[in-house]
Amino acid sequence: MITYNFGIVGLGVMGRNLLLNMADHGFAVAGLDLDQEKADSLQAEAQDGHSVFATVKPEDFVKSLEQPRAIMLLVPAGAPVDGAIKTLLPFLDEGDIIIDGGNTYFTDTDRRYKELSSKGIHFFGMGISGGESGARRGPSMMPGGDKIAYERLRPIFEAIAAKVDGEPCVEFLGNGSAGNYVKMVHNGIEYGIMQLIAETYDIMKNVYHLDHETIQQLFEQWNKEELNSFLIEITADILKQKEGDKYLVDLISDWAKSKGTGKWTSQNAMDLQVPVPVIDAAVNMRDMSKYKLERIQASALLKWNNEENISNANLDDLKKGLYFAIITTYAQGLAQLKIASEIYGYDLNLETICKIWRGGCIIRAILLEDFRQAFATESDLPNVMLDKHIAEKLNTTQSSIRTVLKDTIQNGTPASAWTNALSYFDAYRSENLPTNLIQAQRDFFGAHTYERIDKDGIFHTRWES
Amino acid sequence: MITYNFGIVGLGVMGRNLLLNMADHGFAVAGLDLDQEKADSLQAEAQDGHSVFATVKPEDFVKSLEQPRAIMLLVPAGAPVDGAIKTLLPFLDEGDIIIDGGNTYFTDTDRRYKELSSKGIHFFGMGISGGESGARRGPSMMPGGDKIAYERLRPIFEAIAAKVDGEPCVEFLGNGSAGNYVKMVHNGIEYGIMQLIAETYDIMKNVYHLDHETIQQLFEQWNKEELNSFLIEITADILKQKEGDKYLVDLISDWAKSKGTGKWTSQNAMDLQVPVPVIDAAVNMRDMSKYKLERIQASALLKWNNEENISNANLDDLKKGLYFAIITTYAQGLAQLKIASEIYGYDLNLETICKIWRGGCIIRAILLEDFRQAFATESDLPNVMLDKHIAEKLNTTQSSIRTVLKDTIQNGTPASAWTNALSYFDAYRSENLPTNLIQAQRDFFGAHTYERIDKDGIFHTRWES
Repeated sequence: MITYNFGIVGLGVMGRNLLLNMADHGFAVAGLDLDQEKADSLQAEAQDGHSVFATVKPEDFVKSLEQPRAIMLLVPAGAPVDGAIKTLLPFLDEGDIIIDGGNTYFTDTDRRYKELSSKGIHFFGMGISGGESGARRGPSMMPGGDKIAYERLRPIFEAIAAKVDGEPCVEFLGNGSAGNYVKMVHNGIEYGIMQLIAETYDIMKNVYHLDHETIQQLFEQWNKEELNSFLIEITADILKQKEGDKYLVDLISDWAKSKGTGKWTSQNAMDLQVPVPVIDAAVNMRDMSKYKLERIQASALLKWNNEENISNANLDDLKKGLYFAIITTYAQGLAQLKIASEIYGYDLNLETICKIWRGGCIIRAILLEDFRQAFATESDLPNVMLDKHIAEKLNTTQSSIRTVLKDTIQNGTPASAWTNALSYFDAYRSENLPTNLIQAQRDFFGAHTYERIDKDGIFHTRWES
Repeated sequence: MITYNFGIVGLGVMGRNLLLNMADHGFAVAGLDLDQEKADSLQAEAQDGHSVFATVKPEDFVKSLEQPRAIMLLVPAGAPVDGAIKTLLPFLDEGDIIIDGGNTYFTDTDRRYKELSSKGIHFFGMGISGGESGARRGPSMMPGGDKIAYERLRPIFEAIAAKVDGEPCVEFLGNGSAGNYVKMVHNGIEYGIMQLIAETYDIMKNVYHLDHETIQQLFEQWNKEELNSFLIEITADILKQKEGDKYLVDLISDWAKSKGTGKWTSQNAMDLQVPVPVIDAAVNMRDMSKYKLERIQASALLKWNNEENISNANLDDLKKGLYFAIITTYAQGLAQLKIASEIYGYDLNLETICKIWRGGCIIRAILLEDFRQAFATESDLPNVMLDKHIAEKLNTTQSSIRTVLKDTIQNGTPASAWTNALSYFDAYRSENLPTNLIQAQRDFFGAHTYERIDKDGIFHTRWES
């Protein structure tokens, strides 16, 4: 009887593809899914030379694995993860390793780590990005927590990871729930960039009245330049897809779904007091998309009769404006990681994170190499916008985003993520914000006190009215 | 020995002033604070004719109250509330009433209600707004939960509440934690409006280069017109305040503090999938204000050399732009209340809420009467922007906010809340959003499926790349 090197629980899109990816690299892999159809279809998909075993029986699955066992969960976040652990536990032995490869909220990982440690089971979270094809051909993986357990499995993960310049897009990132946290913020950035691209498409269509083919060609061209990235690339591909004589994108409903990671990023950023307004805007616009009936009513009632046809689209401004906005989005997410690392004790190395994000993951882009270099130059950089090369990129593209946004505002097309990118930049470079007036108001009505610029201490004024 | 009608725990700014307000209206009131100084100073502040008793001893406090007892907690949210309840419990009897008058997170109220019900104690949350002077002279109060207990105390609360057209600004709002929830969203709106006013002040100074005296006079004038409201009024008062030959506001640090209610509003809105982007922006800008050292560095590095002196400030556009932005902020908060009422079963009446917000509270404004009328006309209105009178106000002021924002973007001054107000409006009135592209991207990389506009069902495409 073969003993398998690695086990995967959950044979959905991610689990199945990761398993086959491991099999491609010569590992013997067992898969467990309670759905017989999924188990069968995996077995059918395995090719000659693959050593693959799929089952619906937890005991058979666990017993098929070499000891100490290594089992990765790829099931939906929340109760299914607890359920899978509960199912496996009776068959496990001390020293076995469970890896949560899903989009688990980081505090759940902290809780499960404690519960499983007390039973002698190694447990760690490892965010995995790359979607269906990344999982199959090489994802980016973000492990954290149990370094000893990770080291034992490192050869497998390095074998299956995406490679950039020969370096695998997987590296141990930090303590505790660092792996899930970094993946959460990765997804927050992903939400932001997707919203920015959608707005760019909207601006092209509705502000500058470009035709579909021109828009498609622009994204395709941009992907060959400084905007080169997975999300720009697939946008160009998507816009090519036809169904009969129609473009498929035009047939797709505008109700955008979400699975929570963007929302978590925004909510946690607020707990950490880190502004991530482009990510917030992306979350808000997905939410706004579901109010279709209200929006139809509103479109009849709230009218802007000045939607001027601005014919002189400056394509260079569009490209540079998007580039500017995308940089600020990464800056926000990376700033959040910096603060989270301090508060949660993750001990993150941001250069490493940028390095493993250069390939395999959804937010891979040539820009990541620029950010990696910024942290290589100054590992403690609180915000990449303070790196002089990144600052230079922003300084030379800001007039473009201003131009496009003025046209967009005049036209009446919403561009929430774009505008938040610029406001973030303008606020961040403001030595003085008008929030002194807010402190005065709070002291006026609530005696909440204030601090001063000319002397230390806490002050309260009996304001005259 | 006198028995007192009502007891208040926590003699800080709010507790002390509410107690004296009750004493003004002929009620005998006892106060408890573990700080001897606070108890003493209250006793000293009480006037002839007041029947007031202040103590540091919980047992004496409880025993001084007529039965069934009514005790209101005005202590900081969180552990102090649990601590106060624990301290009182040994001395209470079945049928006594505890009211949490603080800014408690609503789920805590749900939990405490269950714990105390099982002991035969009535418990309900009642948000109170009005700050120091509102508490003293007439606040707006937002009770919810235990209607029977509220009814018993209604005469006291109606006596001390602010009055508008003879009607008290207190009314039972709904089930469960409705009182705390409504107050939380009230504070979220308050954050939004404060940030909008701060940005307006910044735009006046840094985009249009108005001098301090002109700015002060504008706010004073605006308070006599359609912008009439408490927050505009105190802004005019604040800007008058001098210290020597300097204006006090210029001496106040721009690090704006917060106590969490704005953040909770934003975080919970994301859970409910209700976009409240102006409130998010306000939370973000308070957070941004604490990064002073980074901002100083950034101000030297991130330069916009095109800060044109736009001399032709159109003061009417400024006023109308602010008015527009404030309306959208109320619209966001009220939309959140509508959805929360459905999800949490509060059974809120939004007309009632607008009615009791017209006086006493921090967000009181003549606009509230317009919103009240909108809900009187259509009680189920999902968003006040769909009311034809409110829509008219937005339609006739939108060109103003567009003009000011174009100037602001060109100038390089951040105006995050202002821009989010306009993007919210433009997104809400968009029959079609570009989020169809996001659904295509999600299906492309994650096989997340999509819906279509031309047929029902769930679809997945094998996208070509």
